[in-house]
Amino acid sequence: EEARIDHHRLLRTGLPEVIYAAGKTPAQTANIFATMAATGTAVLATRATQAHYEAVAALTPTAVYQATARCITQQPTQHSAPKGHIAVLCAGTSDLPVAEEAAVTAELFACKVTRLYDVGVAGLPRLLAVRPQLMEADCVIVCAGMEGALPSVVGGLVAVPVIAVPTSVGYGASFGGTSALLGMLNSCSPNVTVVNIDNGFGAAYTATMIARATHPR
Amino acid sequence: EEARIDHHRLLRTGLPEVIYAAGKTPAQTANIFATMAATGTAVLATRATQAHYEAVAALTPTAVYQATARCITQQPTQHSAPKGHIAVLCAGTSDLPVAEEAAVTAELFACKVTRLYDVGVAGLPRLLAVRPQLMEADCVIVCAGMEGALPSVVGGLVAVPVIAVPTSVGYGASFGGTSALLGMLNSCSPNVTVVNIDNGFGAAYTATMIARATHPR
Amino acid sequence: EEARIDHHRLLRTGLPEVIYAAGKTPAQTANIFATMAATGTAVLATRATQAHYEAVAALTPTAVYQATARCITQQPTQHSAPKGHIAVLCAGTSDLPVAEEAAVTAELFACKVTRLYDVGVAGLPRLLAVRPQLMEADCVIVCAGMEGALPSVVGGLVAVPVIAVPTSVGYGASFGGTSALLGMLNSCSPNVTVVNIDNGFGAAYTATMIARATHPR
Amino acid sequence: EEARIDHHRLLRTGLPEVIYAAGKTPAQTANIFATMAATGTAVLATRATQAHYEAVAALTPTAVYQATARCITQQPTQHSAPKGHIAVLCAGTSDLPVAEEAAVTAELFACKVTRLYDVGVAGLPRLLAVRPQLMEADCVIVCAGMEGALPSVVGGLVAVPVIAVPTSVGYGASFGGTSALLGMLNSCSPNVTVVNIDNGFGAAYTATMIARATHPR
Amino acid sequence: EEARIDHHRLLRTGLPEVIYAAGKTPAQTANIFATMAATGTAVLATRATQAHYEAVAALTPTAVYQATARCITQQPTQHSAPKGHIAVLCAGTSDLPVAEEAAVTAELFACKVTRLYDVGVAGLPRLLAVRPQLMEADCVIVCAGMEGALPSVVGGLVAVPVIAVPTSVGYGASFGGTSALLGMLNSCSPNVTVVNIDNGFGAAYTATMIARATHPR
Amino acid sequence: EEARIDHHRLLRTGLPEVIYAAGKTPAQTANIFATMAATGTAVLATRATQAHYEAVAALTPTAVYQATARCITQQPTQHSAPKGHIAVLCAGTSDLPVAEEAAVTAELFACKVTRLYDVGVAGLPRLLAVRPQLMEADCVIVCAGMEGALPSVVGGLVAVPVIAVPTSVGYGASFGGTSALLGMLNSCSPNVTVVNIDNGFGAAYTATMIARATHPR
Amino acid sequence: EEARIDHHRLLRTGLPEVIYAAGKTPAQTANIFATMAATGTAVLATRATQAHYEAVAALTPTAVYQATARCITQQPTQHSAPKGHIAVLCAGTSDLPVAEEAAVTAELFACKVTRLYDVGVAGLPRLLAVRPQLMEADCVIVCAGMEGALPSVVGGLVAVPVIAVPTSVGYGASFGGTSALLGMLNSCSPNVTVVNIDNGFGAAYTATMIARATHPR
Amino acid sequence: EEARIDHHRLLRTGLPEVIYAAGKTPAQTANIFATMAATGTAVLATRATQAHYEAVAALTPTAVYQATARCITQQPTQHSAPKGHIAVLCAGTSDLPVAEEAAVTAELFACKVTRLYDVGVAGLPRLLAVRPQLMEADCVIVCAGMEGALPSVVGGLVAVPVIAVPTSVGYGASFGGTSALLGMLNSCSPNVTVVNIDNGFGAAYTATMIARATHPR
Ligand SMILES: Nc1ncnc2c1ncn2[C@@H]1O[C@H](COP(=O)(O)O)[C@@H](O)[C@H]1O
Ligand SMILES: Nc1ncnc2c1ncn2[C@@H]1O[C@H](COP(=O)(O)O)[C@@H](O)[C@H]1O
Ligand SMILES: Nc1ncnc2c1ncn2[C@@H]1O[C@H](COP(=O)(O)O)[C@@H](O)[C@H]1O
Ligand SMILES: Nc1ncnc2c1ncn2[C@@H]1O[C@H](COP(=O)(O)O)[C@@H](O)[C@H]1O
Ligand SMILES: [Mg+2]
Ligand SMILES: [Mg+2]
Ligand SMILES: [Mg+2]
Ligand SMILES: [Mg+2]
Ligand SMILES: [Mg+2]
Ligand SMILES: [Mg+2]
Ligand SMILES: [Mg+2]
Ligand SMILES: [Mg+2]
Repeated sequence: EEARIDHHRLLRTGLPEVIYAAGKTPAQTANIFATMAATGTAVLATRATQAHYEAVAALTPTAVYQATARCITQQPTQHSAPKGHIAVLCAGTSDLPVAEEAAVTAELFACKVTRLYDVGVAGLPRLLAVRPQLMEADCVIVCAGMEGALPSVVGGLVAVPVIAVPTSVGYGASFGGTSALLGMLNSCSPNVTVVNIDNGFGAAYTATMIARATHPR
Repeated sequence: EEARIDHHRLLRTGLPEVIYAAGKTPAQTANIFATMAATGTAVLATRATQAHYEAVAALTPTAVYQATARCITQQPTQHSAPKGHIAVLCAGTSDLPVAEEAAVTAELFACKVTRLYDVGVAGLPRLLAVRPQLMEADCVIVCAGMEGALPSVVGGLVAVPVIAVPTSVGYGASFGGTSALLGMLNSCSPNVTVVNIDNGFGAAYTATMIARATHPR
Repeated sequence: EEARIDHHRLLRTGLPEVIYAAGKTPAQTANIFATMAATGTAVLATRATQAHYEAVAALTPTAVYQATARCITQQPTQHSAPKGHIAVLCAGTSDLPVAEEAAVTAELFACKVTRLYDVGVAGLPRLLAVRPQLMEADCVIVCAGMEGALPSVVGGLVAVPVIAVPTSVGYGASFGGTSALLGMLNSCSPNVTVVNIDNGFGAAYTATMIARATHPR
Repeated sequence: EEARIDHHRLLRTGLPEVIYAAGKTPAQTANIFATMAATGTAVLATRATQAHYEAVAALTPTAVYQATARCITQQPTQHSAPKGHIAVLCAGTSDLPVAEEAAVTAELFACKVTRLYDVGVAGLPRLLAVRPQLMEADCVIVCAGMEGALPSVVGGLVAVPVIAVPTSVGYGASFGGTSALLGMLNSCSPNVTVVNIDNGFGAAYTATMIARATHPR
Repeated sequence: EEARIDHHRLLRTGLPEVIYAAGKTPAQTANIFATMAATGTAVLATRATQAHYEAVAALTPTAVYQATARCITQQPTQHSAPKGHIAVLCAGTSDLPVAEEAAVTAELFACKVTRLYDVGVAGLPRLLAVRPQLMEADCVIVCAGMEGALPSVVGGLVAVPVIAVPTSVGYGASFGGTSALLGMLNSCSPNVTVVNIDNGFGAAYTATMIARATHPR
Repeated sequence: EEARIDHHRLLRTGLPEVIYAAGKTPAQTANIFATMAATGTAVLATRATQAHYEAVAALTPTAVYQATARCITQQPTQHSAPKGHIAVLCAGTSDLPVAEEAAVTAELFACKVTRLYDVGVAGLPRLLAVRPQLMEADCVIVCAGMEGALPSVVGGLVAVPVIAVPTSVGYGASFGGTSALLGMLNSCSPNVTVVNIDNGFGAAYTATMIARATHPR
Repeated sequence: EEARIDHHRLLRTGLPEVIYAAGKTPAQTANIFATMAATGTAVLATRATQAHYEAVAALTPTAVYQATARCITQQPTQHSAPKGHIAVLCAGTSDLPVAEEAAVTAELFACKVTRLYDVGVAGLPRLLAVRPQLMEADCVIVCAGMEGALPSVVGGLVAVPVIAVPTSVGYGASFGGTSALLGMLNSCSPNVTVVNIDNGFGAAYTATMIARATHPR
Repeated sequence: EEARIDHHRLLRTGLPEVIYAAGKTPAQTANIFATMAATGTAVLATRATQAHYEAVAALTPTAVYQATARCITQQPTQHSAPKGHIAVLCAGTSDLPVAEEAAVTAELFACKVTRLYDVGVAGLPRLLAVRPQLMEADCVIVCAGMEGALPSVVGGLVAVPVIAVPTSVGYGASFGGTSALLGMLNSCSPNVTVVNIDNGFGAAYTATMIARATHPR
């Protein structure tokens, strides 16, 4: 058997397993998606192409493709009211695919999302202008490429955890997002933790856990 | 003026600024420590040597030195009951200084800490034996050097955020903790976020925020 | 002469030379394959494309293409009963090409293979469920990308050598399998040795030597 | 002959050669220093220890040691009025040696210097408070370690060139200042150029050229 | 809103924001370009393809595409006489796209540009031959790939700042321009500062600031 | 409790846990050593200094210190006849500490060891001269620093697994053993697997397993 | 003017300038080639594609394309008898393009070349078999990818300089030839010097100088 | 036996083996030195400390210690007239130990040496002034740290091979000589080959071979 779905994860961790489509054929993805959808949970496939979506939709017609986020989503059969609230920031327009992967993931797991995009540190007034909205979130996700300076600045403005997502936006000495990653790991704001380059999904998974814990009812 | 203390941080973020003693002389450290202690907040100096402590104690006699954690602490004048509960794990005995830096930080900020040490993945029964204690925490900090595999395994066992702290324990291709760091950033457990190598302090700062939010009263 | 086949290797080392097709034209590959097949030994070409196979099959019609493993194989004229038994594990579905390269290599060299796939450490029950099968192998090959944590966990469960194969599965800070490689080199399980990224072939070559030595008859 | 002093540099570039003491014995340093002092120009030895200074002072008693900056200076015989004005910023107290190397260099070359220290981005109000002073400089030098985010923020506030100096302040994934260096090279503020890690001297040399050109008389 | 144009930059820094087209769709680029053109400033889009240009020209017919430089430019409505003078050098013919990005940027911002191309250090007479032209510039930009040695040699010949631009020209151990970048950061000419690999735009932005300051009227 | 000894390892894997003294105080090491010695198994502490040994000997007077190998050993109460035979090679005299760590480990675990030292590839006759002894081993350990070429040559001469141990011998571009490590991972001899830099212990642990399996009685 | 041909190089160094086609358009390449051919010297364009060749041949019909070597050559008008003798070795068949670039370069510059291919160290008898031919060369070029061990072994067999050329042959931890490069730089054979990855041309240029000097008449 | 001296090397390669003292005790070094001296050849120990020298001198009183070069030398019993001539250049005074290791090695092997020190590219007139002496050498060794630009410039001036030796002189992004090494490997002068960082010995060994071949009588 090639794939063993970890159905117990929902029980163990409160959130279901998620399909990483990048290394899978459309057929494999569609089969796993359908198997999970049959259990009634929310289903999410990340890094999905249009070809993945077509195969998924053939078996699970209610599935939806969110192109910018590169995600296929299926709502759970039991809809729950949003619990908790996160803000997703990004430094520039090119960071959108990563920011949207985060936003779509959190929304599927019933978390309210405020999007605050193109607020990079080279034009500080843009960030200061959105500060009131920022202050309402239970957890903040900050996506940035190039020098990755935004999470440090945001970390100094808010009283909640900041999850930093380095993006592969940049060229030359950005080394595919490595420079942003290193900057974030060395942040002098102590409420910043970091995930892998372009991993909007992982940031949102953890942010959702935090936001839910903040609003337990 | 060489140092500008960020007294507003407590207001902005709910936790006070912390002194990083590594780059400071004992005299500089002692002065900043005393200035902060005078305001009545909890005061913490990390990466402090015995020499730092002696200078601090001369000005602030109530300060305490925690040698394994390399921390100088001063309790706040207004003691608050613990709010929230974290677990601090480490893979091997050599990870203790980092784990203790995390534990001491969280305790100073009024968070209950359960220590679960030497539970590395090469001897899995040791980890499975402490699972019940693990399940009670609002957030889990996992310190590990060498291959840094422990956070992925822990992440699959709990329903709360896991903050992974790579340690500089190891030799050769551990590259001063870089291999553990990279392993943690690539964790296939999506509830794992990561801080800098040996940064027990930062992990505890964020974990405390999460634990507090989970127990708002 | 562009290619000098090392026919003595079978005598020196007990196993024949193997063709690395990646750097060769289909014509070059087919010629070397046919020359070796004429001696009656098992012939193996790794990293072979469909185009390589078509050229090979024209000269050696009994050759077989194993697509997932990207291998062309030719059975030896003198079939020998399997001698020894290895297990091939992988962490996720995306590691299959590497795991299959290992499995196909070992089978061609007359070694029994048990495949145990998609047993990554984030869902530990999956690994613990296959433990009985794992215990029967004379040598275990473990393929994993991302953080590469699986060999350390497996190494602590078995009493035989574990050969770890880092795979290039992952993105961002996986750096094409480098993070998995580093994790495996730093394994705290002392029965783990490591081969190059994606080198399923080399792992199986050594594993076959170990399994054969364990069952000398 | 072991050392060839480039006396023509003053003619070619308007500023004299400077002695890098780190790789030289006290005796070598003292001899070169005395030879240059005899010509009446400003003389500067960087990365100098107390031992270097003692050897220098024996031959050139008017030389002065600036300990924090690790510089030995000798005023030129023909004093010139300051021409131009630079600001030197640093993110934290530990960046002082680098910031002072820059400040001392610029002052020796007759440039007015405003020091603005400990204004890191995690506590933004501190930077915004010194903005008026910042706006008066002809060129700004920004020294920062860890994530090196400060130059990007400053670059967006001023209308003059910003020279970013990464410092080796930090630990773990700061890799001796490499993370700060990479962040600065990827700055999204286009008026930022970068020098080597800890190279306060080079930053000041260029800043002085710019400030002088701005105030040609 | 996906894009927030930083219109205040012109006021804060004296030069307008610039569009980095690499991460944007033609439609996005065209919209931002038109919005900025409507204000009457000079508009520049860097890293633009022919497809970007066609979308821009549809909305802003006066825009011009400079193919070698990969730039789309729009002259400001108020033309100003050139102020200041820079020289742009490159080591070999393959560095042209980067050198032209620098030259086009500076010319759009009303700075006179002298191009001195293919003057690499392996054939020193070529560089020495252009020395008189070099001496007239207020600031020199030097683009070089491979070993990146040219800025050090130029830095020793001129009395103005040299901005070094490493290019991604080379193969093997050039590592996409990293070797040139490292060489430039370690330059023993103290008037050399450095920008990101292939960042002709950033070099010209700063050089223009310097040249303008040198000729304030 | 700071240390949890994995007493079950002997049952699970056939070989006891081993103490890595590098990160432990003499007192910690001595306590763990004595606890293990009390069970009657072979006890090994690697990376031990003279100070570690003195603390150990105070509690366990029968313990022996092997200075070149930096190991403290305690024979098991039940002596078993050697089972299996390995060869330990090294390229140069400076590799001795690593080679001896391997040899001492294997001998403690009752494996016969043939030492073949200073047989680097730049003087090939030295290696060819020891070929007969090499051919008798069940498994070969090859320690080499600098370019790490020896395992590839040895791998082509023998019919058993070769475990390559890169050593940190060298300077400059040896990068602390990294170049040797990379060479070994890329070996074109397919019977070569690799362990961490300087990890003679791990190589011997696996080699012992292989040699034992080859001589099961 | 975009290209400045360094016609003086032939006078300064005894060998003409050579065209690196990789960064040039076919038209640029053809123009430079024709200009040089008009002077009567040998002309060489390396890294040339079929498209480059077609453009060159249109202007210089006597030019020849050597496909494996990726070189376009034009014999000098004054043919000179071969002077000196080099051997070109390579470890495997995949190294041929680099080895041929070296061989074609040396032959164009009137040096006799003996090709000894596919003699990698994993099958040592192949190398020992060609030893007599090896001993006749004035200089030896050794091309190898993967672990790059061949130059060290050859260096110990001959009494002339060995120029090592790392090739980008390999995968995973070969990092595009970096591992072979590092191995060669750390060679324990002191007659080995190294050029850039895949730089067969540079190796042959220097080898030709050495061979010529050895046979001055 | 711990050390096997490769006495055949003199026969195979025309030059004797050399002792690398860095990894050896004084006693080991002295024994090997004495054994070699007894054969009457020239004996050289590199990277030797004063302690090494004292042990050597006790057994071989005619041995000489050259402190800057860190070499112990013993003249051969049969003195031969110098054959061939090399030039050793270095960029700055701090490169002297490496340059002297090269010079002392070549002189011991009966090669005439011209030292041309402190001629770095930032002050070009210094290099151009020594050009006549440079032109007389059969081979040129160029030692440089920091950006390592000197070999490219020298390579363009001479008609003989240039052996480039990167030195570990520098700080920050020099990464212990790595930046100089990379610069040299990417040299656009095709007569440049490279050895390991600080390896003056290896450069001189090859240069001596070249100079000898040029003057065969
Ligand atoms: N975009 C993503 N980045 C990182 N991990 C992911 C992503 N999407 C899904 N995953 C994780 O990948 C695992 C599935 O891997 P696999 O078994 O190969 O399908 C799940 O445990 C997910 O938590
Ligand atoms: N070629 C370039 N390289 C680096 N930065 C650039 C380049 N072109 C434009 N920029 C900067 O990128 C920013 C725009 O980024 P964005 O908001 O993503 O469009 C502006 O602040 C520019 O200063
Ligand atoms: N020299 C060594 N290199 C690598 N691993 C070792 C070494 N010595 C002991 N070990 C392993 O380290 C583990 C003990 O680590 P700890 O719990 O920190 O004492 C054991 O599982 C051993 O297998
Ligand atoms: N400074 C040096 N750098 C590199 N290799 C050296 C050096 N000195 C001696 N060697 C080489 O090191 C080898 C001796 O190594 P060993 O057997 O460890 O003494 C000889 O073959 C020398 O050619
Ligand atoms: Mg923007
Ligand atoms: Mg332990
Ligand atoms: Mg799975
Ligand atoms: Mg501060
Ligand atoms: Mg050219
Ligand atoms: Mg030796
Ligand atoms: Mg072959
Ligand atoms: Mg000098």
